[in-house]
Order: sequence, then C-alpha cells, then structure tokens
Amino acid sequence: MPEIELMDAKGVRNFLPEEKIPRERIVEALKRVFELYGFSPLETPAIERLDLLSAKFAGGEEILKEVFKFRDQGNRDLGLRYDLTVPMCKVVGMNPNMPRPFRRYQIQPVWRDGPIKLGRYREFLQCDVDIVGVKSMAADAEILAIADCVFREIGLDFVIKVNNRKLLNGIMEYAGFGNYKMKAILAVDKLSKIGADGVRQELLTMGFDKAESDKLLKAVETRGKDNAETISKLKKLIKTPEGLEGIRELEEMMQYCTLTGIKTIEVEPSLARGLEYYTGPVFEVYLKKSKITSSLAGGGRYDKMIGLFLGKQDEYPATGISFGIEPIFEALKLSGKIAIGVKTVSSVLVIPIGKTFGEALKITRKIRDSGVPCEIDLMERGISKNLGYANSLGIPYVVFVGEKELAEKKVKLRDMKSGKEQNLSPEAAAKEISKK
Amino acid sequence: MPEIELMDAKGVRNFLPEEKIPRERIVEALKRVFELYGFSPLETPAIERLDLLSAKFAGGEEILKEVFKFRDQGNRDLGLRYDLTVPMCKVVGMNPNMPRPFRRYQIQPVWRDGPIKLGRYREFLQCDVDIVGVKSMAADAEILAIADCVFREIGLDFVIKVNNRKLLNGIMEYAGFGNYKMKAILAVDKLSKIGADGVRQELLTMGFDKAESDKLLKAVETRGKDNAETISKLKKLIKTPEGLEGIRELEEMMQYCTLTGIKTIEVEPSLARGLEYYTGPVFEVYLKKSKITSSLAGGGRYDKMIGLFLGKQDEYPATGISFGIEPIFEALKLSGKIAIGVKTVSSVLVIPIGKTFGEALKITRKIRDSGVPCEIDLMERGISKNLGYANSLGIPYVVFVGEKELAEKKVKLRDMKSGKEQNLSPEAAAKEISKK
Repeated sequence: MPEIELMDAKGVRNFLPEEKIPRERIVEALKRVFELYGFSPLETPAIERLDLLSAKFAGGEEILKEVFKFRDQGNRDLGLRYDLTVPMCKVVGMNPNMPRPFRRYQIQPVWRDGPIKLGRYREFLQCDVDIVGVKSMAADAEILAIADCVFREIGLDFVIKVNNRKLLNGIMEYAGFGNYKMKAILAVDKLSKIGADGVRQELLTMGFDKAESDKLLKAVETRGKDNAETISKLKKLIKTPEGLEGIRELEEMMQYCTLTGIKTIEVEPSLARGLEYYTGPVFEVYLKKSKITSSLAGGGRYDKMIGLFLGKQDEYPATGISFGIEPIFEALKLSGKIAIGVKTVSSVLVIPIGKTFGEALKITRKIRDSGVPCEIDLMERGISKNLGYANSLGIPYVVFVGEKELAEKKVKLRDMKSGKEQNLSPEAAAKEISKK
Repeated sequence: MPEIELMDAKGVRNFLPEEKIPRERIVEALKRVFELYGFSPLETPAIERLDLLSAKFAGGEEILKEVFKFRDQGNRDLGLRYDLTVPMCKVVGMNPNMPRPFRRYQIQPVWRDGPIKLGRYREFLQCDVDIVGVKSMAADAEILAIADCVFREIGLDFVIKVNNRKLLNGIMEYAGFGNYKMKAILAVDKLSKIGADGVRQELLTMGFDKAESDKLLKAVETRGKDNAETISKLKKLIKTPEGLEGIRELEEMMQYCTLTGIKTIEVEPSLARGLEYYTGPVFEVYLKKSKITSSLAGGGRYDKMIGLFLGKQDEYPATGISFGIEPIFEALKLSGKIAIGVKTVSSVLVIPIGKTFGEALKITRKIRDSGVPCEIDLMERGISKNLGYANSLGIPYVVFVGEKELAEKKVKLRDMKSGKEQNLSPEAAAKEISKK
C-alpha cells in the first residue's frame, strides 16, 4: 500500500500522453503562426509579488480573491499570476527602453482559486498575442490576421465576429442608455446566447423601459447583406461623436482586413466582451456550425490599461487576442481531427525475434535517423505481447527483426490497422512509414 | 508614477524575447529528439496536495522545507511541485493499467523556496526523460542514446561519463569502506571537481584512515586506454557479488551503447551522483573543453524509488536523465551558437514608402505565406526610424515598398548587415531571405 493516498489538488489536471500530444500540436501550431506574423515569445515567472497582482488596474478586488497567496522564507507576500496581461505590463514598465511596437506572444499556465464549474479549472493554459504601442487600426487587423491564419491552419470552420466599443457606446447613446452604458452593454453582449427576448427581459429587470429596450435591440440587431451594408445602416442611426469615431475605426479596420486577405469576418453590433477595459475594436472567433457555442478566441483594443497601470496615461495603446486551448481542443475532437486512442508519439515498434536484439538496435537507430519516431522492445517479450503493447498505445506500425529477414538485409513491416506485411530494407520501411 | 513599485519576486526571472527565443529553440530540439526516440509528453499540474509532496520517499524533510506552501479557499494544504519525479510517480500510481514500459518526457517549471546562490533560482525549468518498467540495461542505453543525439543535434563538444552504483559499492567494499558506503561515495563523487588530494582530505576529515583512503582513490582512478581496458582493470580488483554484478551491468550497457552508435562515452569509476536513490547505472554529460565544468545532463537507474513510493516494491524499475537548460544555454552562448542582439523572431520588416500601405499589407501576406516570419511598420514612421527599429531588434532584412518599385511589381530588399539592396518580386525577396 502506498504510504499516502494518491490524489490531485482540486481543480487541476494531469495530461497523459493521449491528451498532451494533441494539446502540444495545437500549441505548436499557434506558436508557428505567431512567429510567422513577427510576434516574439515572452516568459514571465508563475510567482509574482502580491502587491503587483493586487494593483487596482490589474484586476481589482474580485480577481484578488481568486489569487493563490503565500509567502516565501523571507516572509514576502507572493501570489501565482492569474493572467498574462499583468506580467506583460510589468515587463513593459520595467523595460522603458524596449523598442516599440512590442509584439509579443505568451503561452503559460495561470491559476485562479475559484469555484469549479463545468469547464473551469484552477490551473489552465493562457495563450495571448498582443501589440503594444500602436494606435492604428492596422494593429487590430494584424491581430485578426493571426486569428484567421491560426484557424485556417488547424482546419476549423470558423467566423470572426467584430465590433467596436466606441460604436457600441454610440448605440447606447442613440437608444437612450447614455448614463448606463456598461450595464446595458453587458446585457446586449448576451444576445447570441440568450436571444433578443432574453436580453429584453434582462434590460427590463434592470429597470429600463420597454421602448428604450426595443430601440436598443433593434439597433444591435442591425444587419445588411454584407459588412459594408451593415456599417452603412449603422451610419444612418448613429450620430454622436464617439459613435461616429467607432464607425470610422470599424471601417478602417475592415479595410485592412480585406487587404490582408481575411475572408470570414462579420460585423456583429451586439458583440461587447464583458470586460470594462476595452476602448475600441473587440472581436471573437466562433465555429460556424457546432455544438460548441463558446468563443474559440477573443480580444480587443485596450488603449488605457497599461498606461493607467504604469502611471503614464495614453502612452501605451495596445490590442491583442487570447486563444482558448480548451474550446479549440474540444472543437478538434468533435470534428474528428484528433486521433482517438493514440497514447504515444511512436510511429513504429521494433520487435526483435530470436537472438536479434543487437541488429534490431542498429535498425532502430537507422529508422530514427530517417526522422521516424521509433521505439524498440526492451523487455524481450514475445510477439503477441508486443503486438498487444503496440495496439494498446495505438502504434501504427511494427517492424519485426527476424533472422531469416536479416539474412536478406530486410525487416518485416506490418501495418497494424490493415494487417498488411511487407519485407523491406530498414530504409524502405522508414520511408513507407513516413509516407503516412 | 505607477501606483506600485514594479518588482519581481525574489529568485525568479522574466525572459524577454532576446533570451526566450534561444531557450525555446533548445527546448524544441530536446522535444524533437525525445519524440524521435519514442518518448511521449506528460503534463502534470504545478499545484499538488502537500501530503503528496511530503511523502517520505519523495524527498523528505530537507526538500519539504523548500516547498512553497499555501491553501486553497477550501482550506486544503497545497504546494508547488519541487521536481517532476514525484508527479510522475503519482501519475503511474493513479493509472495502474497504463501499458509498460511507460516512456515519458516532461518539460515544466519547478519551484524551490531555497537560498539564492549563484545560478540557483526559485523557479526553473526541469526537463526529464524516463523509462518506467524495464530492468534491462538496454533501457539505460536508450536514455544515453537520447543524450548522445541531443548534444550532437545542438552541436556541443561533449562526453558522456558513466558508472554503476553497484560497482561503486563493490569498490567501497574492496577499499574497506563497506560500512560507510554512502559517506565515502559522496566524497569520491567530487574527484573531478576537487582532485585526488581534495577527496583524500575529505576522507581523512571524516575520520577514515590514510591507507584505506589511498586504496579507495587508487581504485576510483582506475583507467585503461579505452573503456574495455578500464573495465578489465576493475574486474581484477573487485570480487564482491554486488561489485561483480555492477561490472556485468556496466559491460552490458556499454555493449548496447556501441550497437546503438554512441561514440563519446567514458567509464568514470568515481562518478556517483549525490542522490541516495540510484541503484545501478549513473551518468552525466560534460563539455569536453570548456569553462563550464558543471554537467549538462545527468541521471541514472532508480529501481526502488517508485515502488517504495507506491507501496509495491520491485514492481517499477526505472531509469532516466534530466537535462539542464541553464548550463546548455550557457554553453551555447559561450560557443557562439546563440545570436547576440536578436530580440525578435522576425526575419524581415516591411516598410511602406509614401501611400503604399495597402499594397505593403498584401506583400506582407505573401512573404508570410511563403513561410518567412515578417512584420510590417504599423506606425507610419519614416525610413530612418524604421531602420533604427529594425537595427534595435536585430531584424536581418527590410523590404521597402515604394511606388516606383510597385509599378514594376517589385520591392527593394535590403540586407541590414551588408547594406546590399536588390529590386526583386515579393516572392523572390522571400526566397532570398529564407535562404539564410
């Protein structure tokens, strides 16, 4: 009996190879795209000083409750980071001479000691890309080009939905919600989830009157046959300076998106994203037709946050997006793009038969040298046990190294799925495997 | 002024792109080799239950002092993992039906709240490869083959030093240290660092007599002109059953290493590795000639640890190696293999001149589509500011998009180092850049 009960901490997970392998492939695809777009990796420590994590502009009281807090041996108050934005602000602030724009991506776990609801964990991977230092809508279009490329690359049928918070403020003013923008924005943001009736009910419950609520709903449900028509319809409604500025930003951003070749993008006037700190474009990526209705990625422009945090207002315009590894993983599983039952990276198991282990080692080396992930039986097991092992891990090929085949400088390659066997040279066997 | 002082927690680091990029390249090389050798990734949570981390066989009192400890909102005692072996044992124990051998690699940070000495950090990346479930020395040879491949791949001039703890126990018995093996082993382990005189002094200080100490030193300094001769000389000295078993294991392992093609391997009879839990082969990788005298990787066989941990003795033979990202990074820096002053992944900066931003966006897309990491000026800066930005980040190429060149469907490619400029099509420019 083990001396202790083997249990995980609450809300955290182990990823065995079966899950870790496809997750790694997703992260690798994201990194590849981020770097192709000229974004460089940043790494910050898991442990930060508690006063940094408690900074008012970082997340405030509500998030501070969910920070895992502790002290080091020097009795310093510390905590685990709860996002990657605060650490990025810290790095930007600590390196005032860093050239701008600062184009960084960061893929690291974050921790929140919150309630465990469906799909919420206390340790989860955050995956952010941001540009700091650029006011132009071209930066937002760059961020959207990354999203477009990521989802084309991993092969999901997606649509990018975009809006602008200045425009949304304009809509609020138009509908008479000028003094309660944020409250109404949070209700409207749920349009795609709870529908117009749901939003109307929320607004009424909040105490807004029916005529205003209907006017607001009609405005955020504005749609044309294409994005240009949607925008031109909105133009007819919105006349406040902030609203017009939002429309101008939206038009400019969409123009850059077209030039950069983004096709599946839709203006969605109800899109708000809950957080208060967005100042301009906001965007979310969704699957077109899927059981998964949550967004796969989301972000927007936050021109004031870093400046407020660093005490240098307006000096750090910024925009960025965060990719959700969990929904992307679920979407790929649903679409059958993740192989089920594959518990190893090995493409082939080499099985020595009789006294051939030494030769089998040399052949294993040859197969590896040709770039094919390969393992060899190290336990002198019989053929059927080895085939059972290969099957249980989902290894697609085995190579038998028998004395008869060796005499002809060959091995027997077996395709585990079809059962087809061929006698080939080790090099030819490796080539055959790497074809698939 | 920022509302808080921007400071890091003690003993942790931020890796800006300049450092993070080469670190990532090292980790990618390691992963590539691990997977080529048929090892699959495992991920475990940073947060573990404190009773797991406190388990007697895990690390004991001494390490427990250095665990960062805290509680969640449910008042559960938790801690940050201090290594990757305990989490692996946990996973093996929680998944009794997992096929064996379990060939896993794991690259994740670990935390230790210890004193900050030169080169010691409170958060550092651990990088482990292990095989669980194989008694044969072929498993140890597999682990050494990985080390051999890793260091060939990253291009360092290295040597693998190997020994066997059973043989070392035999040497202790031969020299009369049978009752104080572990104490003497720890002294002998320092031979390469403090020399024979240093070790002799340590042994005398410990209270051992001079004749015994000399006999021991002579034994661990046994060398032949090659490994075979070293082993045959040791055979003449060592006659105890455990010592002979150690020699047999060492011979068998070396045979497999030869068959698998490992060339730079040396039997080093003084090599012990401090930790008590090793039971057979032990190994370390060193640079051949270098200012860096610490090992770049090290490991060995630990047949009892997992079994003791899980209360199932002798059921989990295991062997593995841990790669040190810090010394590998330092070694690559010293050998000039890490580009200095490169603060970005971008290979090229696209600079629009005049009213060409739209066309420049299209060209940027083309360059990216051809696989070249590329960014574009988003700030409408002038030429000299853009060149200054490219220089400050170490971007090797810029592409000027001017109206004159555009009329000829060309761009001007400038090599930032040589200053050489060429007018090329965007595709030809991308090809030119990707050549380097």
